[in-house]
Amino acid sequence: MTRLPHCDTLRLDLHGSTLFITLNRPEVRNAMSLRMVAELSTVFTLIETDPAVRAVVLRGAGGHFCAGGDLHDMAEARGRPQEGGQPDPFHTLNRAFGRLLQQVNAAANIVVTVLEGTVMGGGLGLVCVSDVALAGVQTRFALPETSLGVIPAQIAPFVVQRIGLTQARRLALLGITVDAHEARALGLVHQVAEGDAELDTQLQQVLARVRRCAPDATARTKALLHRVGQEPMADLLDDAAALFAQAMRGPEGAEGTLAFIQKRPPGWAENDH
Amino acid sequence: MTRLPHCDTLRLDLHGSTLFITLNRPEVRNAMSLRMVAELSTVFTLIETDPAVRAVVLRGAGGHFCAGGDLHDMAEARGRPQEGGQPDPFHTLNRAFGRLLQQVNAAANIVVTVLEGTVMGGGLGLVCVSDVALAGVQTRFALPETSLGVIPAQIAPFVVQRIGLTQARRLALLGITVDAHEARALGLVHQVAEGDAELDTQLQQVLARVRRCAPDATARTKALLHRVGQEPMADLLDDAAALFAQAMRGPEGAEGTLAFIQKRPPGWAENDH
Amino acid sequence: MTRLPHCDTLRLDLHGSTLFITLNRPEVRNAMSLRMVAELSTVFTLIETDPAVRAVVLRGAGGHFCAGGDLHDMAEARGRPQEGGQPDPFHTLNRAFGRLLQQVNAAANIVVTVLEGTVMGGGLGLVCVSDVALAGVQTRFALPETSLGVIPAQIAPFVVQRIGLTQARRLALLGITVDAHEARALGLVHQVAEGDAELDTQLQQVLARVRRCAPDATARTKALLHRVGQEPMADLLDDAAALFAQAMRGPEGAEGTLAFIQKRPPGWAENDH
Repeated sequence: MTRLPHCDTLRLDLHGSTLFITLNRPEVRNAMSLRMVAELSTVFTLIETDPAVRAVVLRGAGGHFCAGGDLHDMAEARGRPQEGGQPDPFHTLNRAFGRLLQQVNAAANIVVTVLEGTVMGGGLGLVCVSDVALAGVQTRFALPETSLGVIPAQIAPFVVQRIGLTQARRLALLGITVDAHEARALGLVHQVAEGDAELDTQLQQVLARVRRCAPDATARTKALLHRVGQEPMADLLDDAAALFAQAMRGPEGAEGTLAFIQKRPPGWAENDH
Repeated sequence: MTRLPHCDTLRLDLHGSTLFITLNRPEVRNAMSLRMVAELSTVFTLIETDPAVRAVVLRGAGGHFCAGGDLHDMAEARGRPQEGGQPDPFHTLNRAFGRLLQQVNAAANIVVTVLEGTVMGGGLGLVCVSDVALAGVQTRFALPETSLGVIPAQIAPFVVQRIGLTQARRLALLGITVDAHEARALGLVHQVAEGDAELDTQLQQVLARVRRCAPDATARTKALLHRVGQEPMADLLDDAAALFAQAMRGPEGAEGTLAFIQKRPPGWAENDH
Repeated sequence: MTRLPHCDTLRLDLHGSTLFITLNRPEVRNAMSLRMVAELSTVFTLIETDPAVRAVVLRGAGGHFCAGGDLHDMAEARGRPQEGGQPDPFHTLNRAFGRLLQQVNAAANIVVTVLEGTVMGGGLGLVCVSDVALAGVQTRFALPETSLGVIPAQIAPFVVQRIGLTQARRLALLGITVDAHEARALGLVHQVAEGDAELDTQLQQVLARVRRCAPDATARTKALLHRVGQEPMADLLDDAAALFAQAMRGPEGAEGTLAFIQKRPPGWAENDH
């Protein structure tokens, strides 16, 4: 892949086919600044269709995932004079974060969030667009926006997609905090780890599964999942049959079939550890 | 707010910003008569956009929430001669209840259902449109319609919205009864209380959370949640960014920001106990 | 009903109003061959609107439900020369299975899957379109397609409908295996039985509930559930009110009302044991 950019707010480490992204503003519990949003977007633009990056692991530095929006950016937006014809800076910063959520949601790579400490507001939004979410047992989740007089504007729609309207109502309208076990029961996260070692073990197991699955087939399956409910089912299934035939006739389908018959791991399973 | 109307089938009590509505036909386990539907609709029309009523608590008198449709109304509809051009009275009474469900679902206030005893048919429909549902451990839930030769016509669609197609199939097609713990696992209700005292404690905690959240921000967030899946995501997020900017620039956003900096509760948190 | 056809890959047994279909290729863990798809489709075409067949029970012979697609069919499709203008045989066989899933999903009968051993790929697809799914505790579920270099093309959309996008992502993208208890937590299945006797008891209880519910009302309720989210809610509710009035005025509504008043089981509850 292309060389990774330098980032002020992120730490980037590429190990084999996995890109580890660490939100790196521990002094503010990795609050999501405009710069962090821009840097995350730049990184995802580089990798979002790169088959060499099969997994992206998102976590936070210093024991917290992300405490939500950045207060300094908010103060700056409030203080800036609004000029005729210029968009409201609050609109701009809010929508920029929502665009990042759309981008991460649609990325062809498998996105894994590894969660600790505080997961609030925008941090919870990132969880909602990850393919697999793993949480340490001490993690706490909340959408505190309405208790601060504002709305979880870009986040709430992804919360509804993630956990359904019923649970989103209670979570978003009461601004309550839920713990890791409740987050799992609600479907916010997939697995809860009792401690750091178990969290790491769960992550390694997920990454081993990612390496076991064919990269292109995985990307096409992910794209297919996102189309359900957006178009008539019969049309989607017609198109899916064409995708199936292509996959069968493509290099991954050929290698997968051969490896199965020869009782050996397929080639894509070996190019990473 | 405007003076509360006199109702035959409901008991109404306004405490601060919370309106307590008690379904009050205990002799028939609060069966949902046409009159009760009309009175509920009148009350919700009065309050559904009134920011002074931040929460509505719906419960039943006499140890049951609601046993479903009223048999007397059904017999009356069956007995009435059908005249040319006139709508079938069964159609009219059924649709009237569905309109009430749409109205309660969309109300700007936070709607809390407090459940005991029997929750059947239309009673279960009301649960499906509440923002928070609390159930005593003895509560029993069922959609018995098909076992009576009819269909849960206005209710089943809201059951699918509440708990998804998979669980709605089993619940509606087999007419089974589920207990409070299963209702929680299915997502019909959010919390189960072991006894009356715990149920009351849970309710007080919910109401405390409602008072902690800004009324207008809460109403706008609720409206936003209901739009997910009804329009293209990008359009919804564009609009949500405008709502965010408005909230930030409005009185609640200003007060919320100031209160946060001054480490004090915001003004809206103090006008009720 | 019409005489049941002879099938090579299925065992068919009609007991009262219940049709038991056993996938009967135990030597390949009931892998879903093109012939099996065709035979299932023929059977469902015969019964899918037949009110005499109130329940269909789908299970597998030899301790497994279904291991997914048939390898022989795949090899045959790969070996067949592709001629100009002819559809790719991979497309044809894939879409044929998806059409079967659509057909079973929409069948007016109550479809019950009884699961043991291996439930993979297409087998898991069948689970996703059943009204009630019962699983023995030893059952294992997986979508292994991406680990074989292909995609769960016809299946993944029904997995999203069954368990939602959040859980479908992890299940389909990692190709993991889940046990019966996790399958229940995800909503793939409704009940888990600890052993064969309990599995049979659960099945008998489900069938008893099916007999207790009016056949036509059940079929109309099932059709209604499938329409939610496919059309505007207000239109759906208008139409549902008309269906309610029809049901009330029809023979089942009359009998159900009378039986309720006379405190006896309705007629439809007695024509089967």
